[in-house]
Amino acid sequence: MACSKFEYVKQFEQHTTVLPNTFLVVRLDGHSFHRFTATHKFVKPNDERCLHLMSHAAKHVMETYPDVTLAYGQSDEFSFVLRRRTTLFKRREAKIASTLCSLFTAAFVCAWGTFMKDVLLAYPPSFDARVVCYPTERNLKDYFSWRQADCHVNNLYNTAFWALVQDKTNPSTERAAQALLKDTDSAAKNELLFSRYGINYNQLPELFKKGSVLFRKPTIVQQLSSRDGTTPVERSRNLVVIEHRDIIGEQFWEENPYILQD
Amino acid sequence: MACSKFEYVKQFEQHTTVLPNTFLVVRLDGHSFHRFTATHKFVKPNDERCLHLMSHAAKHVMETYPDVTLAYGQSDEFSFVLRRRTTLFKRREAKIASTLCSLFTAAFVCAWGTFMKDVLLAYPPSFDARVVCYPTERNLKDYFSWRQADCHVNNLYNTAFWALVQDKTNPSTERAAQALLKDTDSAAKNELLFSRYGINYNQLPELFKKGSVLFRKPTIVQQLSSRDGTTPVERSRNLVVIEHRDIIGEQFWEENPYILQD
Amino acid sequence: MACSKFEYVKQFEQHTTVLPNTFLVVRLDGHSFHRFTATHKFVKPNDERCLHLMSHAAKHVMETYPDVTLAYGQSDEFSFVLRRRTTLFKRREAKIASTLCSLFTAAFVCAWGTFMKDVLLAYPPSFDARVVCYPTERNLKDYFSWRQADCHVNNLYNTAFWALVQDKTNPSTERAAQALLKDTDSAAKNELLFSRYGINYNQLPELFKKGSVLFRKPTIVQQLSSRDGTTPVERSRNLVVIEHRDIIGEQFWEENPYILQD
Amino acid sequence: MACSKFEYVKQFEQHTTVLPNTFLVVRLDGHSFHRFTATHKFVKPNDERCLHLMSHAAKHVMETYPDVTLAYGQSDEFSFVLRRRTTLFKRREAKIASTLCSLFTAAFVCAWGTFMKDVLLAYPPSFDARVVCYPTERNLKDYFSWRQADCHVNNLYNTAFWALVQDKTNPSTERAAQALLKDTDSAAKNELLFSRYGINYNQLPELFKKGSVLFRKPTIVQQLSSRDGTTPVERSRNLVVIEHRDIIGEQFWEENPYILQD
Repeated sequence: MACSKFEYVKQFEQHTTVLPNTFLVVRLDGHSFHRFTATHKFVKPNDERCLHLMSHAAKHVMETYPDVTLAYGQSDEFSFVLRRRTTLFKRREAKIASTLCSLFTAAFVCAWGTFMKDVLLAYPPSFDARVVCYPTERNLKDYFSWRQADCHVNNLYNTAFWALVQDKTNPSTERAAQALLKDTDSAAKNELLFSRYGINYNQLPELFKKGSVLFRKPTIVQQLSSRDGTTPVERSRNLVVIEHRDIIGEQFWEENPYILQD
Repeated sequence: MACSKFEYVKQFEQHTTVLPNTFLVVRLDGHSFHRFTATHKFVKPNDERCLHLMSHAAKHVMETYPDVTLAYGQSDEFSFVLRRRTTLFKRREAKIASTLCSLFTAAFVCAWGTFMKDVLLAYPPSFDARVVCYPTERNLKDYFSWRQADCHVNNLYNTAFWALVQDKTNPSTERAAQALLKDTDSAAKNELLFSRYGINYNQLPELFKKGSVLFRKPTIVQQLSSRDGTTPVERSRNLVVIEHRDIIGEQFWEENPYILQD
Repeated sequence: MACSKFEYVKQFEQHTTVLPNTFLVVRLDGHSFHRFTATHKFVKPNDERCLHLMSHAAKHVMETYPDVTLAYGQSDEFSFVLRRRTTLFKRREAKIASTLCSLFTAAFVCAWGTFMKDVLLAYPPSFDARVVCYPTERNLKDYFSWRQADCHVNNLYNTAFWALVQDKTNPSTERAAQALLKDTDSAAKNELLFSRYGINYNQLPELFKKGSVLFRKPTIVQQLSSRDGTTPVERSRNLVVIEHRDIIGEQFWEENPYILQD
Repeated sequence: MACSKFEYVKQFEQHTTVLPNTFLVVRLDGHSFHRFTATHKFVKPNDERCLHLMSHAAKHVMETYPDVTLAYGQSDEFSFVLRRRTTLFKRREAKIASTLCSLFTAAFVCAWGTFMKDVLLAYPPSFDARVVCYPTERNLKDYFSWRQADCHVNNLYNTAFWALVQDKTNPSTERAAQALLKDTDSAAKNELLFSRYGINYNQLPELFKKGSVLFRKPTIVQQLSSRDGTTPVERSRNLVVIEHRDIIGEQFWEENPYILQD
């Protein structure tokens, strides 16, 4: 074309593709969310509204890309699985990471008002993304066990930390709370929550303890018949559902074998 | 920690970094914008509102990341230059691409209403991103020449195409317009525009013909004195400006040497 | 150290590592072996001496690197499998490829005289190497099926080609032989060999038809007792053996399960 | 072809190419040369025979690949520069690294007897290779300054170390020599060499202190006229020369501008 003199610069592009026949995990992380949650005065230790907003954005990503078979979110992060055989964007790493990250961000911002009600969005939030390949089912399951164990560990810590800081009669400074919790094990944190604050950690919402698991479930939906457009008929559709449950054990995977299928 | 059993999965992450001492170009492209512009009934061939919205989002990216020294946008794409010596995100490719892309997307959605007025956003838009390294100033300038030449070529084509399709007395089908323009050179398109529609291509807005160039310019701003907080004083600040001008020739680069500096 | 001023240049090195928990295949290919075989007047279509020399060099590589569980060679190429869990050279791609390639080359040159007898080595030969990751056993087996099928197809072609060219009563030019064989299928080539030259392709040596398979086999070896240094004792050692056999079917893999084990 | 069923495994190959318009440095390093020099009883601190053998192998690489404009060697390593514009092997990283490494190894083994005389080669030696991109002349020169400074630092240390260990009247153990030299600066090592052993470090051979620099020099060669095949004529040829000289300063680069040219 007319541009040929300059077009040589295209040769500098490197289109890295991810290894075929491996599960792809795309993990998004909130960028500078410490500042973001402070600016928007998020409820601590968990702001339920934003957790639901995150899941909503993730659901939109899953509904847009059928090759995403599973998503898992906790805190300001979300992980998506692309099935082994996916050829999405010819398995180009940068394209997969940036497009999913961009779509999640857009869905997050679009639905901000719906979930955060009267909290005004002070500035545009952003997320980063990375793509990781996992060659076996074992590795993939262990990835999600890693994230869900991380959710539990962090949530227990944060619950104890904010209980101390938000203590109405005798509030700790953040520094003091940190010093107190340093080197305590799970049992000690559970005990502190129960004895000082009457909080039974095990009875806290699963949303906080387990995070959010999004997957497709055959669901009966009511539709109008395509024949006459008026008779109501029932159809089975694979709809994305959001549950807060254990994915470290085998049960979840056994119940949903399609997640790992080719 | 408690997670150690599963933490081995971190080893599967590959943190590709981009070659040091090279200019980095991050190019964002609208994903499926053909559908997006149709859904939102964009003015054709150019929707000025969205071009300004794109520039607004790019400006936000530049103001957030001082290492971005230049941005250039046209149509549904925007390119950003990170200076040679940048150590942003330790020069990790995925992190640079996804974060800038995410922030641009968020700023685009946040400012949608301001620029698009009463056009409701029907669904979340998305962009993809790639990072390209350019080792020399010549390569970098040629990259932008490539994009600006592309802007010109596409704009001339689109102006002619939509003139034919939107012809009030004798509208072409899209297919017919395409067939008519196929294999015509620039002169023929200019001639067609002028003879049939009285359009002098050279007098069209620079915004359409040249795209948008964002760079930092030392600018005198009025501030209140930091001493007493009331006396107005003038300060020079490097503010991001948006201009629609030639960047193929040497003049722009000579006037703004800092863009290419270390 | 004293070099610190210049040491920054180390940052430009990129240590690409290959994905964990995948089988690694390192394939070596002779560089410009068309010229090399012509210069050294190799017997056509197969020079048995050089095939044995290739296997000898491959065996040396296997004996040096215990993580190589299998090697397969044909023509001027050799492929090596590194087991899934190998941490050889921290799985650095360039280091694995270049070191194995270099060692093979050295062993090839060192043993040249032993195998090629009075053929003088006219100039130093070279090989290139690549590393490929295979995430599943199926993919890995298919890789070797690909190479062994390639061996068969090429050998049948070459056998027919050189029969025509070396025909004592009515030799073809290379061009004519090529033209004659173009678009013939296996059956036609078999038929030509048998009817014109009395060659029953199926009775040709397995070395030519199947290539060379190197793997470790528990073998009884005679040693002198470590106790008294004189009494002969029998020990089982995993010794590298060279066989010319089918690896497309399942039998080979079932007989040698350790090849695919972690 | 007939192999199509298995050929899909080719898709797993990743052909990483190096960034265009950058200088490529291929550095080879001896693998386990500590053991190799011990086995072959190399003269310490420097075995002149092997240094010449290394340069010989490097010269062969340069004569085979005209795009190599410079090579620098010291100890058991050699670095090669490929010019900015090289398209050797389509700039495929693995192919460049492995082929040059393989050829160097072959040339090293082939010429072993010529240089090492009656020292029998006990086993095949090997080298590893890496490719590094340098975007500017400054970076490239600094790379070679780094290697030559390293040569000097190591040689001074080794000269002192082996003087102590090989001391005829009062030999140190290797451990004692190491302890003595630990934390000494250059001046102290120079002083020790001079006062104890009468060695003036500055008067040692440039080969040891500076390493070996290989580059192309226009050289007058005598040929027989191509017209009559008998008259001797003089021609200028760019022949590879080996010198032992400083390449940290600018003089070498100014005298040989073609090394850095496109």
